[in-house]
Amino acid sequence: MFRNRMPHYEVLSADAMATLDKGWRRLVSELGVEFMSQRALDLLAAEGQKVEGDNVKFDPDWILAQVAKAPREFDLQARNPEHSVHVGGDAMAFGAVYGPPFVRQGDVRRDATMEDFRNFTKLAQSFPVLDSAGGVICEPNDTPLDSRHLDMTYALATLTDKPFMGNVVSGPNARDTIELTSILLGGSAGREAGRASMEQTPALISLINCNSPLRWDDRMLDSLFEYAEANQAVVLTPFILMGAMSPVTIPAALVQQIAEALTGIALAQTIRPGCPVVFGSFLSNIDMQSGSPTFGTPESGMGLLCTGQIARHFGLPFRSGGTLTSSQVPDAQAGYEALMTLLPTFLAGTNWVMHSAGWLEGGLVAGYEKFIVDVELLQMMRAEFTPLEIDEASLAFGAHEEVGAGGHFLGAMHTMERFRTCFYRPLLSSSDNYEKWSRNGGLDAAARASKIYADRLESYEQPPLDEAIRQEMEEFVVRRRKELGD
Amino acid sequence: MFRNRMPHYEVLSADAMATLDKGWRRLVSELGVEFMSQRALDLLAAEGQKVEGDNVKFDPDWILAQVAKAPREFDLQARNPEHSVHVGGDAMAFGAVYGPPFVRQGDVRRDATMEDFRNFTKLAQSFPVLDSAGGVICEPNDTPLDSRHLDMTYALATLTDKPFMGNVVSGPNARDTIELTSILLGGSAGREAGRASMEQTPALISLINCNSPLRWDDRMLDSLFEYAEANQAVVLTPFILMGAMSPVTIPAALVQQIAEALTGIALAQTIRPGCPVVFGSFLSNIDMQSGSPTFGTPESGMGLLCTGQIARHFGLPFRSGGTLTSSQVPDAQAGYEALMTLLPTFLAGTNWVMHSAGWLEGGLVAGYEKFIVDVELLQMMRAEFTPLEIDEASLAFGAHEEVGAGGHFLGAMHTMERFRTCFYRPLLSSSDNYEKWSRNGGLDAAARASKIYADRLESYEQPPLDEAIRQEMEEFVVRRRKELGD
Repeated sequence: MFRNRMPHYEVLSADAMATLDKGWRRLVSELGVEFMSQRALDLLAAEGQKVEGDNVKFDPDWILAQVAKAPREFDLQARNPEHSVHVGGDAMAFGAVYGPPFVRQGDVRRDATMEDFRNFTKLAQSFPVLDSAGGVICEPNDTPLDSRHLDMTYALATLTDKPFMGNVVSGPNARDTIELTSILLGGSAGREAGRASMEQTPALISLINCNSPLRWDDRMLDSLFEYAEANQAVVLTPFILMGAMSPVTIPAALVQQIAEALTGIALAQTIRPGCPVVFGSFLSNIDMQSGSPTFGTPESGMGLLCTGQIARHFGLPFRSGGTLTSSQVPDAQAGYEALMTLLPTFLAGTNWVMHSAGWLEGGLVAGYEKFIVDVELLQMMRAEFTPLEIDEASLAFGAHEEVGAGGHFLGAMHTMERFRTCFYRPLLSSSDNYEKWSRNGGLDAAARASKIYADRLESYEQPPLDEAIRQEMEEFVVRRRKELGD
Repeated sequence: MFRNRMPHYEVLSADAMATLDKGWRRLVSELGVEFMSQRALDLLAAEGQKVEGDNVKFDPDWILAQVAKAPREFDLQARNPEHSVHVGGDAMAFGAVYGPPFVRQGDVRRDATMEDFRNFTKLAQSFPVLDSAGGVICEPNDTPLDSRHLDMTYALATLTDKPFMGNVVSGPNARDTIELTSILLGGSAGREAGRASMEQTPALISLINCNSPLRWDDRMLDSLFEYAEANQAVVLTPFILMGAMSPVTIPAALVQQIAEALTGIALAQTIRPGCPVVFGSFLSNIDMQSGSPTFGTPESGMGLLCTGQIARHFGLPFRSGGTLTSSQVPDAQAGYEALMTLLPTFLAGTNWVMHSAGWLEGGLVAGYEKFIVDVELLQMMRAEFTPLEIDEASLAFGAHEEVGAGGHFLGAMHTMERFRTCFYRPLLSSSDNYEKWSRNGGLDAAARASKIYADRLESYEQPPLDEAIRQEMEEFVVRRRKELGD
């Protein structure tokens, strides 16, 4: 997996950080945070926090003591050990887009289906630059709602051998996801062995969103309880579009983010001390004229840089970023907004990166062509964030002696020895001259991306899986679907 | 003008810098650099440098002593003092694309004309985010070659009131450019007063490219002599596509760049000690499979970050970056490659940024739509590279008290007071929902950009200029054109 050994780009002074620190302490202690779950309220009350109705006013130092119980970094196991990932430190892991109800394929925008879900899962499997297919890559609208989580988890488990994200629609859904995963990991040793292995090293990582501002909802908290109790990783994520879910000033949003993320993490550590957690951030802003969410904005870029520094300040792995855009189609705007998000993602040393491939139209659409654009961006960023090795030999004095002033290095010995690997080789970008490009149909990046994803789906190979395990998973899905009345 | 008060992103360790320092010293002293100009060779010989034929082997310490005579930063005057710029320090100035023989307008790619040159000049004048129209925004192929510099300079001087770049095709062209500019600045006080004013505070900044590797050509050096003698700013720029004009390793290209830029700067300081110079860099790579130049690559991004740090190491203003791309059309690739260049341009604290708007197809094409894409990027980057002000008030505690948990900030007092200016407002990007976007024609960014540039040209207003000055400039152009036989 990718290790980002480049320096972090840190933009907050010690003074600024101290001001933010005072801010979140004031928010959690004076205004408090709402938890729409009696179990959560009981636990927090038992820990001496001030519970009034759904509101909890916190002792900030108790929060920090809980946060200190969380591991600074952890491993996340895949069924193929070669695809297990590390979360935290200088490790960066990337997953596909999460949540879109629609897909775009060329000029067609339509409801997403289970077929689309499988296609995107296959694409995520086929590109090494993606560490995970993610979770809800798109909503399979043609499957029954109550058992959809079973279909998605089954597809993620069988079509990829990479780690994936757990369903968070409800507590029972979370339990089903854990069951299916323990079958998958147990192998011939059986489900209990799988469950034990998961408890040892988490296999699921799940997105627990805050209903910002300052409220944790019941279904999300039910899922949090299931996953934390099973020692599975959770990403506690304030979901903030500044101007709607937070004040319009970035510092206010940062403070709110800390208050939300840390209270969620403190609860997780109360449920199961030491369980793996991630400081999540989903921070952008709305267009104040139309009220539309906007992505790839200067404000979201700045917010991302700050939040990475803040997560490190609290010693926690950090989730944010991706290839976000408001654009409706994979055009120039989609290209630059995606990179407006992804470059700060790398500069901030983000550890768990959701929405890394396929995000379009403010996250409402999973785009086939956009998926390919984003894979190209991920590959380029990895190349750019690989530190130079600078030593005497790298200066190639001999090549200069060979070529001389005004000469050409293309045929030099130094070049011949390195030309295959010296530069990044693009997947999508074209540097063809105009004549060649025209001869090949004059295709823009989106049109070329169409061919690339189709080829990839064509050449996709399913990773091997023991037939007995697959059958046991299928039986579980069939049984649970029946129980759920679908 | 824009001041970049964000931290520099520095990626070279002290050890790495020391290795690069040893490298350029070895190159200039053991291999030397070629100067295809007897005047240059004579000057350098007189200074005790080892001249053999066109080759000069340098004492690196003499180079550093010459470099130390250059100002660390300087002002560049415009005919409208409000548009004068500062070059160096935390100042960043942006100019349009430079050099393309072709233009692209929608689906049409064709030879550039004087009409296109005027159009792009007008666009550069109309966007405050551009500090300069640049110089050869495109080649006006329908004007006579020998007097084309007169037409371009006249257009730049009359259609904008911002500073512009000097012609460098030959020594006489440079003299003509200086003459025209002294008429422009002299006003009623006359040409001599204009010339004196220019000597006091430079009005022209000109691109002197190295014929990399390690050779300075005669015409460029003739132009350098003219501008340096007149105390006009020069941007000494190694022109390196790694793999062709330098070895394929980035450290080797960096060392070569230093050797080339510093020898050019040392010569400029020998011609006129203290004349304003800029450490230039034009650094990308070729595709090793096809030999095509590529832009917006990971290697060029890394090179840019390193070179900014290197220029500061030598205490010199720095030119690089822009919105470069290999893409043939203003598509997703053009969007992300432009930002792949522009974001490092800001991270590196680049002072003079050529090719900031309109660059397409490896610099062969000036694109009308791409110009608008790039203005959007420039505006976004300026917003993103504006440090946050973080104080108690910015945390908006009162807004939280007003809104409460689970609430909505859109109507909050804190929001109402700030909603007009709190976030960047896009020129081109759309966050319209799908229905509204479809109703408006379902236009992608390129199609929307077409409308924007047409509107801008429609509403362009020529900046006022004294008719006597304009006439004197026109008379100069007419006379010189005749003398040049066009």
